[in-house]
Amino acid sequence: MGRLLDQVNSPADLKMLPAKQLTELAEEIRQFILDSVSKTGGHLASNLGTVELTLALHYVFDFKHDKLLWDVGHQCYTHKIITGRKDKFARLRQAGGISGFPDPAESEYDHFTVGHAGTSIATAIGMAIGNRRQKKKDKIVVMVGDASIVNGTSFEALNNLGLARRQLLIVLNDNSMAIDATVGAMAKYFSRVRLSQTYEDLRKTTKNILEHTPVIGKSVEEAIERIKKSIRMALPASQMFESLNIPYFGPVDGHNVESLVQLFKALEQLEHPAILHAYTSKGRGFRPADSRPSPLRKTSVGGTEPIYTPSNGASKFHSTGPFEIKEDDKVEKTADISRPSFTTVFGEHLTKLAEKDDKIVAITSAMCDGTGLADFRKRFADRCYDVGIAEGAAVDIAAGLARSGLKPVVCIYSTFLQRSFDQISQEVALQNLPVVFCIDRAGVVGPDGPTHHGLSDIGFLRMLPNMVLTAPANDVEMKLALEFALSADSPVVIRYPKDLIPPKKFVRSACAKPFKLGQSVVVKKTKDSSIAIVNYGSILAEALTAEALLAKDGIAVDVINARFAAPIDKKILSLLEMGKDIITVEDHNLACGFGSAVLESYALRDAYSEKQKRNTQACPERSRRNDIRNPRICVLGAPRRLIGHDCRETQLMQAGISADKITETAKEMFEIRNPKSEIHPS
Amino acid sequence: MGRLLDQVNSPADLKMLPAKQLTELAEEIRQFILDSVSKTGGHLASNLGTVELTLALHYVFDFKHDKLLWDVGHQCYTHKIITGRKDKFARLRQAGGISGFPDPAESEYDHFTVGHAGTSIATAIGMAIGNRRQKKKDKIVVMVGDASIVNGTSFEALNNLGLARRQLLIVLNDNSMAIDATVGAMAKYFSRVRLSQTYEDLRKTTKNILEHTPVIGKSVEEAIERIKKSIRMALPASQMFESLNIPYFGPVDGHNVESLVQLFKALEQLEHPAILHAYTSKGRGFRPADSRPSPLRKTSVGGTEPIYTPSNGASKFHSTGPFEIKEDDKVEKTADISRPSFTTVFGEHLTKLAEKDDKIVAITSAMCDGTGLADFRKRFADRCYDVGIAEGAAVDIAAGLARSGLKPVVCIYSTFLQRSFDQISQEVALQNLPVVFCIDRAGVVGPDGPTHHGLSDIGFLRMLPNMVLTAPANDVEMKLALEFALSADSPVVIRYPKDLIPPKKFVRSACAKPFKLGQSVVVKKTKDSSIAIVNYGSILAEALTAEALLAKDGIAVDVINARFAAPIDKKILSLLEMGKDIITVEDHNLACGFGSAVLESYALRDAYSEKQKRNTQACPERSRRNDIRNPRICVLGAPRRLIGHDCRETQLMQAGISADKITETAKEMFEIRNPKSEIHPS
Repeated sequence: MGRLLDQVNSPADLKMLPAKQLTELAEEIRQFILDSVSKTGGHLASNLGTVELTLALHYVFDFKHDKLLWDVGHQCYTHKIITGRKDKFARLRQAGGISGFPDPAESEYDHFTVGHAGTSIATAIGMAIGNRRQKKKDKIVVMVGDASIVNGTSFEALNNLGLARRQLLIVLNDNSMAIDATVGAMAKYFSRVRLSQTYEDLRKTTKNILEHTPVIGKSVEEAIERIKKSIRMALPASQMFESLNIPYFGPVDGHNVESLVQLFKALEQLEHPAILHAYTSKGRGFRPADSRPSPLRKTSVGGTEPIYTPSNGASKFHSTGPFEIKEDDKVEKTADISRPSFTTVFGEHLTKLAEKDDKIVAITSAMCDGTGLADFRKRFADRCYDVGIAEGAAVDIAAGLARSGLKPVVCIYSTFLQRSFDQISQEVALQNLPVVFCIDRAGVVGPDGPTHHGLSDIGFLRMLPNMVLTAPANDVEMKLALEFALSADSPVVIRYPKDLIPPKKFVRSACAKPFKLGQSVVVKKTKDSSIAIVNYGSILAEALTAEALLAKDGIAVDVINARFAAPIDKKILSLLEMGKDIITVEDHNLACGFGSAVLESYALRDAYSEKQKRNTQACPERSRRNDIRNPRICVLGAPRRLIGHDCRETQLMQAGISADKITETAKEMFEIRNPKSEIHPS
Repeated sequence: MGRLLDQVNSPADLKMLPAKQLTELAEEIRQFILDSVSKTGGHLASNLGTVELTLALHYVFDFKHDKLLWDVGHQCYTHKIITGRKDKFARLRQAGGISGFPDPAESEYDHFTVGHAGTSIATAIGMAIGNRRQKKKDKIVVMVGDASIVNGTSFEALNNLGLARRQLLIVLNDNSMAIDATVGAMAKYFSRVRLSQTYEDLRKTTKNILEHTPVIGKSVEEAIERIKKSIRMALPASQMFESLNIPYFGPVDGHNVESLVQLFKALEQLEHPAILHAYTSKGRGFRPADSRPSPLRKTSVGGTEPIYTPSNGASKFHSTGPFEIKEDDKVEKTADISRPSFTTVFGEHLTKLAEKDDKIVAITSAMCDGTGLADFRKRFADRCYDVGIAEGAAVDIAAGLARSGLKPVVCIYSTFLQRSFDQISQEVALQNLPVVFCIDRAGVVGPDGPTHHGLSDIGFLRMLPNMVLTAPANDVEMKLALEFALSADSPVVIRYPKDLIPPKKFVRSACAKPFKLGQSVVVKKTKDSSIAIVNYGSILAEALTAEALLAKDGIAVDVINARFAAPIDKKILSLLEMGKDIITVEDHNLACGFGSAVLESYALRDAYSEKQKRNTQACPERSRRNDIRNPRICVLGAPRRLIGHDCRETQLMQAGISADKITETAKEMFEIRNPKSEIHPS
């Protein structure tokens, strides 16, 4: 007897199974995901929670034509498994393998490359309008989690759901968890609903929804009215969505696959938008990652509200590296950490500084662990604010904190900070408020791939007035940058990668100098150098490696650690004035990045420098001499194209942000300077 | 007998008046605003609606210590009038005069320079936390409109209101209007509440709130419970906010200043966040701008929902230029339009194209009139989607529309598009979906000032993969750009200013050439020129003016109309290769703008060009020759500092984006090139 899973390579195969076998298949898939992710790493807990919902959807809908849209998308593994990508899980999130997120390039069953929260309902509305206008009958289903539905974009979409005016089913996958436990009023509200329900209630609700749908030929209002009259529904939840005029069904058990199949068969016939509220357990079936509290317990968090508090296993196994499954279900993560990460160094130092300065507070957007704030929160629970997936509000709250005299530290990943660009622009930059932004995951991010790269932050932030942009090269500089930022009287941005700090040998003495506004440090000064490598941030290690390689080839270069991308140090420009060529290197888009800022500064110097003008008038010879040997600026950074999921090191190579690329560029420059010279290897 | 208003120059003066005189004062202020705005232009309707609310707040709270935060902020005129700025209204929104928005630089009574919607509740939460932590007793009041409260950032903040854990009063100023009538489910919901209330209900509600607050010594829950039991409150509205655990009071009449005073005296004593829902009429007291329907009428908009539909006078007088007040209350706007605006040309041409292509649909964010879509909407009501102040969802809906095969045109002002940066990045650019972005108000915007300038769009958009960025120089190019964008198979951005199209003399024959991806056009080729002016967008007129000025001084320059900022035309780089200097000019931040893109492209050419490398090897002499006369690139654009409210023309001068600045720069370049030459005026 083979596994059922071995027979299922497509939704068509799935539909061949009798519905009662789906429970067994669900367990096999759960095991498959567990085995697979333990080897490759990946998003575990969320995927263990959505097995049954996904199977039931694929069993009922025909997603060759119908459209299944995922919010965030990291919970789509079951979907990938049954849409022909099962065999590719051995290379999940690796080069040449499949992405950890939906990707239209992989499969006709995927429609958007996603990774950020709150977008699916709005895109679904757009597709629904499109289908309606083009008289397409394709059905549309959205799978959205309770952590995503509180996002501002989700709310804006719910507020406009009426535009769809046709079928559009939203499945609310409610596991009471973002990466961390969900927070905020709506989460408490869902939690109250959850606490008011027993398993028997869920069963009854399901039964009654089935008895009273489909509603073909009847208006939704009428159908809902009938359902309401006959059953004990979760009235508070229903009221919230009905305030927004959204027909609400539920809550139901999101793990009872057979009854889900029945429900979807009924709900797929609705001709209006609707929401099905399903309870799931993040990490279900794998005890260390399971969020189910047993029994349900009431705790008091931040007030008098009873709140459903999940165990923290699901948070630990939200996104994981490879790990070992032990017999007693205990696990040991494969140790892969010899040096601490930038994140850890940041978190520890912030906590240390906060001990001495009670004005320091931290704010994050559902990423307390990810941004290194876990210990800070433990130590200073009342000074750490997690607002859920709400980056816009997080920044505005920080602005208010700063205006009231506190020192807020905003901890958001670079890619997600894009959500708060406008708030940073208006509430922080325009007001010149001393908010500190600690931007983790800046640069390429490895396995999460294109949706998660943090390659735009320098660009969108350096345009804004008053913003100071800095990037530490290593742990020593991380601490100094944080101290600098917390003592500044303007907004300061500190960016650092999802990476370990560089090995000790790359921490040079210059790195120990305190950070001073707009001042670079010379890390390596070489006699008779005609080229300077100017790095921004953690890429210093690559610059130093390049310097050593070039020295072997007899090419002397300086290494300047810029530290600031705004303002640009005039000393960098003076290198050019001295006739040196420079190579800028950064872990960011080449467009609008640090190198671009250097180019602008140099161009501005030409255009505006009164001194230059006077010199020209006083000493035309000098001006001409200046013309004779204009220095070159080469900029290295990520090109304007997608960098796929892979390990970070390879991505840096691909993007041309590496010691090799620096070396190659320096050699080209050297050759152009010295066309007839021979290079003598040392 | 002088006016009461003459005695009131500060909140202290206001507090000296007996409460019963406030009604008279309100009428005087209304007249003052009307007279003042008819002379200077400004935001009229919204300010006529908030007179009583503002007076009552200042009468009760002490905003020398307490904090009054405005959402959007254009409704703050009464606040400015009674906080010592009455005499400055003669220069409202003009150089040296006061801003049309709150501005901390103007007054200690202002705390944030605002202009974008949805931010006030979040900043208030931050300030509340700050006050709590620092044991400050300052009270915090937020004034937010019903159009702003549906914004995603507002919702994220409401969801986190629990963080405040102290007094924080939100006044919901509900006039059923954004700039246009508010849309979406929440607006319909407020509208249902409004329709269910009579004037008598409002009076009773007020009476009962007063009888049951303050609640000192009692929990809010208890107080609310008592109020609920004793009065007929607007239960549906109360349910919506109570779902989010926000104590709700109202609705009440927002124009009865005496009862508002009593209400605020009660509500100021709450020790928890709360919301007061007040009805106002936008444009009250000035018939052409009054939104009050008389009597309340039920209409059916987009479905079977009854909706409160305001007259469109308030929309017309949302933001106005100077106008004349005639005796019969009719008005004539002072005619100031001799040429059509870019907006008008866009709107007309889109409608024309849409006649022939039914795949074209338009989406906007509460700016149907402002973006020139009014006629399109009239002609194609079912192809025009206004999502309210929800720029993030607007872009995601557009992505869904494009994915379904339609051709969506997103019409959002440059400054507000910042709200959807992340959605453009993920749902549009990453997917390479053919969404057309028509970015109005790009560049400096005149009287609205710093919060409304559109100076960052080139920067944040050109970093994204697949995006094509274009800008028309005039009406002829506007039409061609739109045709190009609608036939492209990638996302295309078209940016244009809040301005009239340039006079005919600046529309040269080259402008009639069809737009081709990444291709510039030569507008003026001059024999023996050593300098080329390369403009991006409507600033072509300035470039041509500069060219003529320079010709008079015997300096020959070419004028190239770049048309595209992404991709950059290689022909522009080839000018440099030919040894010409270039001056780029654009109505955008110098940082990350078009000029910056040219600099990057040129730097990349140096670094990466294999051809260059081969040439170097094959012909070292050529490489050296190239070095001998490296060309210069001067970039002109807005500096990284605030550009205050003023007329657009002056702002362009201040920013150095002008014919004069181009001329001056070209002369400098010419002098550097020809240090000994004498310039012979023609």
